[in-house]
Amino acid sequence: MTMRTETDSMGALEVPADRYWGAQTQRSIGNFPIGRDTFVWGRSMIRALGHLKLGAARANRELGELSALDDTALDALEQAAREVVAGDLDEHFPLVVFQTGSGTQSNMNTNEVISNRAIEILGGEMGSKSPVHPNDHVNRGQSSNDTFPTAMHIAVVLDLHEYLYDNATKLRDTLDAKAKQFADVVKVGRTHLQDATPITLGQEISGWVAQLDFALAGVREAEKGVLALAIGGTAVGTGLNAHPEFGELAAKKIAEETGHEFHQADNLFSSLAAHDALVALSGALRVLAMASMKIANDVRWLASGPRNGIGEITIPENEPGSSIMPGKVNPTQCEALTMVATRVFGNDATVGFAGSQGNFELNVFKPVMAHAVMESIRLLGDAFGAFTDHCAVGIEPNTERIEDNLSRNLMQVTALNPHIGYDKAAKIAKKAHKEGTTLKEAALALEFLTEDEFDAWVVPMDMTHPRTVDTEG
Amino acid sequence: MTMRTETDSMGALEVPADRYWGAQTQRSIGNFPIGRDTFVWGRSMIRALGHLKLGAARANRELGELSALDDTALDALEQAAREVVAGDLDEHFPLVVFQTGSGTQSNMNTNEVISNRAIEILGGEMGSKSPVHPNDHVNRGQSSNDTFPTAMHIAVVLDLHEYLYDNATKLRDTLDAKAKQFADVVKVGRTHLQDATPITLGQEISGWVAQLDFALAGVREAEKGVLALAIGGTAVGTGLNAHPEFGELAAKKIAEETGHEFHQADNLFSSLAAHDALVALSGALRVLAMASMKIANDVRWLASGPRNGIGEITIPENEPGSSIMPGKVNPTQCEALTMVATRVFGNDATVGFAGSQGNFELNVFKPVMAHAVMESIRLLGDAFGAFTDHCAVGIEPNTERIEDNLSRNLMQVTALNPHIGYDKAAKIAKKAHKEGTTLKEAALALEFLTEDEFDAWVVPMDMTHPRTVDTEG
Amino acid sequence: MTMRTETDSMGALEVPADRYWGAQTQRSIGNFPIGRDTFVWGRSMIRALGHLKLGAARANRELGELSALDDTALDALEQAAREVVAGDLDEHFPLVVFQTGSGTQSNMNTNEVISNRAIEILGGEMGSKSPVHPNDHVNRGQSSNDTFPTAMHIAVVLDLHEYLYDNATKLRDTLDAKAKQFADVVKVGRTHLQDATPITLGQEISGWVAQLDFALAGVREAEKGVLALAIGGTAVGTGLNAHPEFGELAAKKIAEETGHEFHQADNLFSSLAAHDALVALSGALRVLAMASMKIANDVRWLASGPRNGIGEITIPENEPGSSIMPGKVNPTQCEALTMVATRVFGNDATVGFAGSQGNFELNVFKPVMAHAVMESIRLLGDAFGAFTDHCAVGIEPNTERIEDNLSRNLMQVTALNPHIGYDKAAKIAKKAHKEGTTLKEAALALEFLTEDEFDAWVVPMDMTHPRTVDTEG
Amino acid sequence: MTMRTETDSMGALEVPADRYWGAQTQRSIGNFPIGRDTFVWGRSMIRALGHLKLGAARANRELGELSALDDTALDALEQAAREVVAGDLDEHFPLVVFQTGSGTQSNMNTNEVISNRAIEILGGEMGSKSPVHPNDHVNRGQSSNDTFPTAMHIAVVLDLHEYLYDNATKLRDTLDAKAKQFADVVKVGRTHLQDATPITLGQEISGWVAQLDFALAGVREAEKGVLALAIGGTAVGTGLNAHPEFGELAAKKIAEETGHEFHQADNLFSSLAAHDALVALSGALRVLAMASMKIANDVRWLASGPRNGIGEITIPENEPGSSIMPGKVNPTQCEALTMVATRVFGNDATVGFAGSQGNFELNVFKPVMAHAVMESIRLLGDAFGAFTDHCAVGIEPNTERIEDNLSRNLMQVTALNPHIGYDKAAKIAKKAHKEGTTLKEAALALEFLTEDEFDAWVVPMDMTHPRTVDTEG
Repeated sequence: MTMRTETDSMGALEVPADRYWGAQTQRSIGNFPIGRDTFVWGRSMIRALGHLKLGAARANRELGELSALDDTALDALEQAAREVVAGDLDEHFPLVVFQTGSGTQSNMNTNEVISNRAIEILGGEMGSKSPVHPNDHVNRGQSSNDTFPTAMHIAVVLDLHEYLYDNATKLRDTLDAKAKQFADVVKVGRTHLQDATPITLGQEISGWVAQLDFALAGVREAEKGVLALAIGGTAVGTGLNAHPEFGELAAKKIAEETGHEFHQADNLFSSLAAHDALVALSGALRVLAMASMKIANDVRWLASGPRNGIGEITIPENEPGSSIMPGKVNPTQCEALTMVATRVFGNDATVGFAGSQGNFELNVFKPVMAHAVMESIRLLGDAFGAFTDHCAVGIEPNTERIEDNLSRNLMQVTALNPHIGYDKAAKIAKKAHKEGTTLKEAALALEFLTEDEFDAWVVPMDMTHPRTVDTEG
Repeated sequence: MTMRTETDSMGALEVPADRYWGAQTQRSIGNFPIGRDTFVWGRSMIRALGHLKLGAARANRELGELSALDDTALDALEQAAREVVAGDLDEHFPLVVFQTGSGTQSNMNTNEVISNRAIEILGGEMGSKSPVHPNDHVNRGQSSNDTFPTAMHIAVVLDLHEYLYDNATKLRDTLDAKAKQFADVVKVGRTHLQDATPITLGQEISGWVAQLDFALAGVREAEKGVLALAIGGTAVGTGLNAHPEFGELAAKKIAEETGHEFHQADNLFSSLAAHDALVALSGALRVLAMASMKIANDVRWLASGPRNGIGEITIPENEPGSSIMPGKVNPTQCEALTMVATRVFGNDATVGFAGSQGNFELNVFKPVMAHAVMESIRLLGDAFGAFTDHCAVGIEPNTERIEDNLSRNLMQVTALNPHIGYDKAAKIAKKAHKEGTTLKEAALALEFLTEDEFDAWVVPMDMTHPRTVDTEG
Repeated sequence: MTMRTETDSMGALEVPADRYWGAQTQRSIGNFPIGRDTFVWGRSMIRALGHLKLGAARANRELGELSALDDTALDALEQAAREVVAGDLDEHFPLVVFQTGSGTQSNMNTNEVISNRAIEILGGEMGSKSPVHPNDHVNRGQSSNDTFPTAMHIAVVLDLHEYLYDNATKLRDTLDAKAKQFADVVKVGRTHLQDATPITLGQEISGWVAQLDFALAGVREAEKGVLALAIGGTAVGTGLNAHPEFGELAAKKIAEETGHEFHQADNLFSSLAAHDALVALSGALRVLAMASMKIANDVRWLASGPRNGIGEITIPENEPGSSIMPGKVNPTQCEALTMVATRVFGNDATVGFAGSQGNFELNVFKPVMAHAVMESIRLLGDAFGAFTDHCAVGIEPNTERIEDNLSRNLMQVTALNPHIGYDKAAKIAKKAHKEGTTLKEAALALEFLTEDEFDAWVVPMDMTHPRTVDTEG
Repeated sequence: MTMRTETDSMGALEVPADRYWGAQTQRSIGNFPIGRDTFVWGRSMIRALGHLKLGAARANRELGELSALDDTALDALEQAAREVVAGDLDEHFPLVVFQTGSGTQSNMNTNEVISNRAIEILGGEMGSKSPVHPNDHVNRGQSSNDTFPTAMHIAVVLDLHEYLYDNATKLRDTLDAKAKQFADVVKVGRTHLQDATPITLGQEISGWVAQLDFALAGVREAEKGVLALAIGGTAVGTGLNAHPEFGELAAKKIAEETGHEFHQADNLFSSLAAHDALVALSGALRVLAMASMKIANDVRWLASGPRNGIGEITIPENEPGSSIMPGKVNPTQCEALTMVATRVFGNDATVGFAGSQGNFELNVFKPVMAHAVMESIRLLGDAFGAFTDHCAVGIEPNTERIEDNLSRNLMQVTALNPHIGYDKAAKIAKKAHKEGTTLKEAALALEFLTEDEFDAWVVPMDMTHPRTVDTEG
């Protein structure tokens, strides 16, 4: 491999000649061989770092902070940042999550790549730091301590919009359509896993939609906190060395480029020393995951069988279910989604714990927090997409089974409470259960009411809503 | 012990004659001897159950649902419910958290106590269920499945207001006053636990205030979801047997009596089958707890010493610190608060897990979820109160130490970046560190700038904010 | 209230005259009003503190460390400690979990109570600290930093034996008997919630027993780590001021009195600075809790119905199940046990987090860790007891349902794989499923085998074990 | 891309011609586009699947179960499995963690790849399933339900040995050498972050070693449970269709090939329906992670400064610490290790939760559990390696600072307790603290002892162990 020499304040070292990164990136590769197979930063974080540097460059330029550079150099700097945004330079970002807890090496990786790429554009010598210096120019008015959390927030917000919202909404809308479609399918309700009073399949599914709506509203609310950026705080939140208008203007440029309402945070000290907005978002994602678990569990239980389970709905058959049991079909999308839910739960534990461990002016668990939140977003989004396309869209009632079950259900007895009281109603249900008869048979045998009364009072569809006409209390 | 006979649908059994509870409560005592020392429901849940039954009784009465009872009986029913609210009947609530997962026994405990107490007021025979029947009247238009989650929400909201908000605000305001008071105390900033550029003590504390503000806003936002009540859903969310206006009206009555904006939930199916509003609130409380951990940790580290720690602030000495080391004083309030934080973290894990385990029309982890959320609220509130009164209020800068530390700090070198560049500044800092000299000595020895320049550029107080005048970039 | 004056190194204050505690306990009451309703230390911790002080007193006496006291005074000291062990003085222990993180106040509470009680026995003046001084004599050769973790370990081990093991073993043995009893009840197996190949009910239950055996073995293994005591480490683990043989001898005395194999820990520095043995035990308890969740879930699903669930077993009916649905019976013991499981899960999160937060020579999350572990032990033990007595003992197969289900099961087709291959077997199952026929009908229609072959090869009971005779491969 | 047709029981579909996988793998790619960037199974799981199939093939061959294949075909089958073990076929394993919860697709992926590769070796037609059939031969006597958990265990055990043990032991031994090296460096002890009695640096480090020893012993103990394999259970644990000696023999072959003491599990029902051995192992890894957090925190706090922290040790400077603060050096290895610890903590939450969610004969959270455990193992191992090489190995005492701190410490007063009693000692410490004097000055001013006595009694090195000579008590 051809190498070139790069230097930093600790000295010189060799870097692959075809890579834009510099000395600090190279040191980090050597110092942090941790989880390299799966924990190298991906597109989302690299794009966010690009947006950050682009916004910073544009703000500094506008404020005259980069007057040491001429327009050609400034254009090259911005072009290099735009290439980072676009994904053209992803292979020049080799670092992993488990590095310095402030993300310093990833900030420097970005500074070095942009510096060298700009120098290349300008025909200079890579590693010379001239005319575009990684610290003095690319990192102008910045510190890792404010830029990395800024990039974290950018990455998370963009991921929410790219991966989560559409997929979650697609699932929500698919289920909502099902809820409306099955509004008249009366079936057995179940509480404590035991037969209960009737409900419609549409009502049951509407509960899932309500959970998704609630959870998504929570995520969107939590996103607001993530729109606040640490930029402008520099090393400890005071803004030392930054132009007084830099942070606010850089945030504005970032908002412009990304199309999201980013703005500088009100208090920059807490923006460096804590990442409570990410803890809050992670908590909101957990609500979504836990709601998904309820939904996916309901789907697979309702679809259980085919002959010896509940079997009241059918779901698509996507693949052979078993390597040994021929003809078996399993609720595999439910399994993938619930596995994702447990992963999100664990990620959230990581984020909460890490979020509490700041000291003084800095929380040094930044990378692991950002990574876990982004992983949760991506997994939920992907799983919602797959679950919708390969499962939810194909949910259908098994009408025969539903009606058969309903006809045997004893809990329709509850409709008699307002007419004959709880105690007599209980006697009917117990008699029918014990003797294996229908409710009506037991009711008439006990002479608590007439057949006409029974037929008028016990109507499953009428039991799926409050009384429409008043009854004696 | 004198006993009387009580009955339910499973038969008769003996109950202490001086207790209002009935057969189902008595069965629960026998069936659930789990954690009896510390898990008997306390004042908050009992009060909430009282509010629920009072609201239900008033709504049913207004809707004519209790026309089987005359006004005297209705007054007695309401009086009994009010006594439950007031705390007069707490000793008649002997049940524990670990019971039926829908809280059925606690709902029935309330029904039984109110029934018997009303019967007593009316001169009837306890256990006769006449004229006020626990199911047909006290539980009219209700099921445990909608009432218990309603009571859970009432209890949680009342606890937030009774225990949490005032104490949290008191701490927040105390710290905010300290932030303003110490706005001019310039000190060493610290990142990665290492000396960093200067910050004022006021700025440092303002970060804590910002964290509390953010977290509290999150809790208040999450409270909104808890104002939505399940009442009116009855057994499975359909509202079977309830008057069509009952749920909404009962919620209105509960709002009236408690002074909080309770209302019926939009989707009652999810209100029984999931408790995502509590999961969300628990997540918000966790943010508050994790923020508290950061704050308490900062306080105790800043106060560490007295001679061999950081020692830049002093905190009140409240008790002897050691049974063996005479004269030792410890940051005990920080310890209590951070222990509470870990407990809230664990409670949150319980709530999230339990919240995911609903099936079909019901989540049967209701009691453990309510208990954990209420415990977190209470502990945080109590700990904030104690921490404020016995620690935060007495935080004072140790000016001598602060100034001594600041004068030795090497990171003031950062102020030179815009003037001489990062690389030269690094050389100065490294030389001073290696040789144990001051920055100025090293800077002059390296001949990177004049003494006048140094004195003009390196001014700690100027380093606690962005540049006020533009410098060449 | 009559008061007396007590003093400590910070001065004098008033204490209720009828209480043995002294100044430091009184200060703690005022300083830590946190969770007083439910977090006052209970019997287990008080007893453990008594054992600790008794063991220490006996060891010091034997080593001549308390030669300043005559035999009468030494006897009084030991008697007072024995009264603490016996529970006679519980009302003199008013402190809560959330105090100093080393448990200093609870150690001093014990020192003060034993000192004053011994003084009382000796006819002296309470509060005089003479002749038995709380620090110099009761706390001789000790620090809170080594005594409190010693008491934590004693309390936890005694609780394991008092509450957990017997109850867990009772459940295990009850299920084991059921497994043997139902060894010949062939039923549908279920994987992915879908019908699978046959299994016996006894085999199914044997899996639960195996889980309990594995988890309990893990708890017993983890207990070993808790038998190691910190005693003798004094303030920072060095043993300063203790007689060189004190720690080992005190541990021996404690072992003698409690009947458990306590011994001094090998490394006293880690015994004060970390509580990994408790983290490990908590992890082992979590395995037990998570296994319980699987078992309780299986029980309630197998018992689901009565008519529209799986319904293959019946469990005892312990109480009316619903305040609105007459005649409903619910798997309430399963619900209590699974709620306990989620609580243990949360406690474990607390313990793990707190366990990581030690600094230098001390972890100051001792009380919250001990409390959470003890709560988990107690809840699991109580819940196992209740679940066994009120549920497991009454598990019975619903033979009619089991046979009916089995006869309809399509997955018996798997038995054909070795004879006709997976692909043909799959065709049979799919045809039967699609057309709603039996397997045999489909098999014969496809002409893959003869009726005799089918009858010989598809025998459910034969499918509950590996082939006994070799078949063509 | 050239394609070929592959079939399964659901029909035919196109597969890239240069890939060995078949129809079911191809379906899974389409059905589970979840987390594809980072959740494709890696080397460890593929190798384990290879070992599993190799062991199964060898066992079946020996038992005559594959008599339909001739020796050439059997050799080809084994060769293909060995190629999977060796890593030659990794690019033919494209599936992700979030698939069917039993790992069915990954089991079938392996069956398909081995089948087609063996067919290729034998000169047959890929996709023909002849002569080596993926189900009938490669999967002979197996089900995904027993093979995937078998592969999970193999992968985890091999990873423990490949990544964790050596790295953890290297760290442990490095610290142990430091503990011995610094056995005579007396320094200030710290409890509650406050100055406490003296300790040696060697003693302090010995506590870290003891934590690692304890945690590693726990991991090794937990590994034993993972050596038990589910193989032989087939679909539901009964062993249907397997030769009665297959499971035991296959486990023996796997043990032979891997060199680890694998054996068939005693109860196969719980081996499919639960993965408690992994939950237990995850809990043990958490102890290790939490211990690491304590150690890494101590290191960075002891190294804090350079001028305004504790600064009693120095650690290697590996990279520039700040993009804005020139000359800053940070404890970055501590940060990476503690971030790993929070990730392991979250993984453990995932594993515990998922482990509780089995139903009947199967837990369908297998892939997410295996993945999380393997990730924790790998991250801990990698981080221990990096931490040892780049930090622990370079820990050195800052003797000047240590001595300076020690000379100012007030807690040496504790040595006076046995001579003058706790109360007088407290007065000395308080006076010295208040007046800023040395202890000796305060002691003499109070006339509690002579200068000779002070000098004889207060000797820091003597305070780092129990008394060697008896003193009056």
